[in-house]
Amino acid sequence: MSDLPYHTPLGPDRLRALGIPAPWTYGLADRVRFGELDAIGHVNHTAYLRWFESFRLPYLKARAVTDYGPTAPRLVLKQVTCTYLAEMGLGEDYIVTGRASRFRRTSFTMDFAVWRVGDEVARTAEGGAIVVLLNRDAPGRYPIPDAGRAAFTEQDGAVAEG
Amino acid sequence: MSDLPYHTPLGPDRLRALGIPAPWTYGLADRVRFGELDAIGHVNHTAYLRWFESFRLPYLKARAVTDYGPTAPRLVLKQVTCTYLAEMGLGEDYIVTGRASRFRRTSFTMDFAVWRVGDEVARTAEGGAIVVLLNRDAPGRYPIPDAGRAAFTEQDGAVAEG
Amino acid sequence: MSDLPYHTPLGPDRLRALGIPAPWTYGLADRVRFGELDAIGHVNHTAYLRWFESFRLPYLKARAVTDYGPTAPRLVLKQVTCTYLAEMGLGEDYIVTGRASRFRRTSFTMDFAVWRVGDEVARTAEGGAIVVLLNRDAPGRYPIPDAGRAAFTEQDGAVAEG
Amino acid sequence: MSDLPYHTPLGPDRLRALGIPAPWTYGLADRVRFGELDAIGHVNHTAYLRWFESFRLPYLKARAVTDYGPTAPRLVLKQVTCTYLAEMGLGEDYIVTGRASRFRRTSFTMDFAVWRVGDEVARTAEGGAIVVLLNRDAPGRYPIPDAGRAAFTEQDGAVAEG
Repeated sequence: MSDLPYHTPLGPDRLRALGIPAPWTYGLADRVRFGELDAIGHVNHTAYLRWFESFRLPYLKARAVTDYGPTAPRLVLKQVTCTYLAEMGLGEDYIVTGRASRFRRTSFTMDFAVWRVGDEVARTAEGGAIVVLLNRDAPGRYPIPDAGRAAFTEQDGAVAEG
Repeated sequence: MSDLPYHTPLGPDRLRALGIPAPWTYGLADRVRFGELDAIGHVNHTAYLRWFESFRLPYLKARAVTDYGPTAPRLVLKQVTCTYLAEMGLGEDYIVTGRASRFRRTSFTMDFAVWRVGDEVARTAEGGAIVVLLNRDAPGRYPIPDAGRAAFTEQDGAVAEG
Repeated sequence: MSDLPYHTPLGPDRLRALGIPAPWTYGLADRVRFGELDAIGHVNHTAYLRWFESFRLPYLKARAVTDYGPTAPRLVLKQVTCTYLAEMGLGEDYIVTGRASRFRRTSFTMDFAVWRVGDEVARTAEGGAIVVLLNRDAPGRYPIPDAGRAAFTEQDGAVAEG
Repeated sequence: MSDLPYHTPLGPDRLRALGIPAPWTYGLADRVRFGELDAIGHVNHTAYLRWFESFRLPYLKARAVTDYGPTAPRLVLKQVTCTYLAEMGLGEDYIVTGRASRFRRTSFTMDFAVWRVGDEVARTAEGGAIVVLLNRDAPGRYPIPDAGRAAFTEQDGAVAEG
């Protein structure tokens, strides 16, 4: 798509205009690279998890969970999952969408989807991640900041648990 | 460990001697590389999924599921998951163990574990994968060969389903 | 830079407007990803070579050297080099420029540069590659098509040798 | 090779016994992984540079250039080069050899080679790197320790310059 705004956060209105439905509220567009293909010529299964990782960095800042500053919590991945729905190939444009779906005091669950954006939009993968917040320079866990809890609830409809 | 046999299939006796319990019956040892670390200095979460991928190739040949020849089925990953139990760092020796735990006519589920092998053995990650067999040059699915079903059952104690 | 057109070929006029001098005539913009950092927190030295690889694919089609079709030559890398001028970090925008500088009957030399594009443009790396064209399904070398030789000469000022 | 000692430094005698000639004095064996292949099914050109990177870490400790401790210098790569002599494929065993060939007060040049080790030994790639030593927490350069200069000279026959 010649006018897809790569590397630029896409909000709900923009996503709906591109054919990506609720509840997705944050998206980032990019294009498949040669180095992401494996010996079969399809996007390697680990590339999708790299895309989710790249997504989390600006998303968690936008949701006020961390500013990545010197006193910010350490964010540790406890679990990842990915389900593959369609093979992808070289040069394809895609959008990764992600959102917090559930959170507790010091951890949260994210959902992801990958959307191929060509003549029509199609979901090619779904993923998930559980992230735990730890104190940076001490043992123990770090609570999600109030602003982050509010953003998860209000912008993503995430459910508070525990 | 100076005498760890890297890149060499480790059977049940060898694994038990190294402190890795049942039901694991097949293992492969390797060492963490610099390029597997991320900006935090720990092994990146995608590296573990690469290790499981490297494991599957010789394992599925050893279990008579495929000889990777010109008439062999295409093996397609439908789902992966990984749970992280402990961080790993540069130069650490590890063993990946894997086994088929369940299978149907044209698909199977694998379980994985990563074991740090130093002074004492510790499990650092657990994973899973669902693999589907497809015909190489035609639409449709490809049945797991009888020898593969037998190996899954007899060597790994996998359960036939469906 | 909020309006940098990522993944879109940038011609001479566009490059000059961005502060990138002659003789560069073709550029592609992208952004540093988390997965390209190494344990020191800087872009790993191999990432630049991945960027040059990603550049070559559309560039060689634009220069009529190959259409990547079933009868196209195999393009084989004989040599790469990269000189690092400044460290790069997470999230930085950059432009890769590249051009053929010399060619013979069945091989050519490319030059590359990486430009950081923020408040002011700065070159962070320079690279080179020697590429050989081989017959796809037979031994022996494949001559650069006439249209490719013409494009190398006219658009990039490349020098014919040998 | 079933008895190749992977990940274990191989000295001059061991290398000669494996068919690798002088002046190589330090080698490390490993095996090609699936994730190192590109869409053509051959080892990607960046994988060799990862192998050289993995080599440098233990080699520079063995040559007393750094102990990687808190007061050790920062080692920065200024230039890399690689020439590809033969394609490599999945599961092949290889040995990387490397040595310092020249050094100045605060920088040194390394040469590398990759050797396929099957029925007969063959060199598949040659490489080079220029490394600069910097002060860890201050501007300016850091001199190669005397023990490192001595090891470069005595063990690798490196030439002092400048």
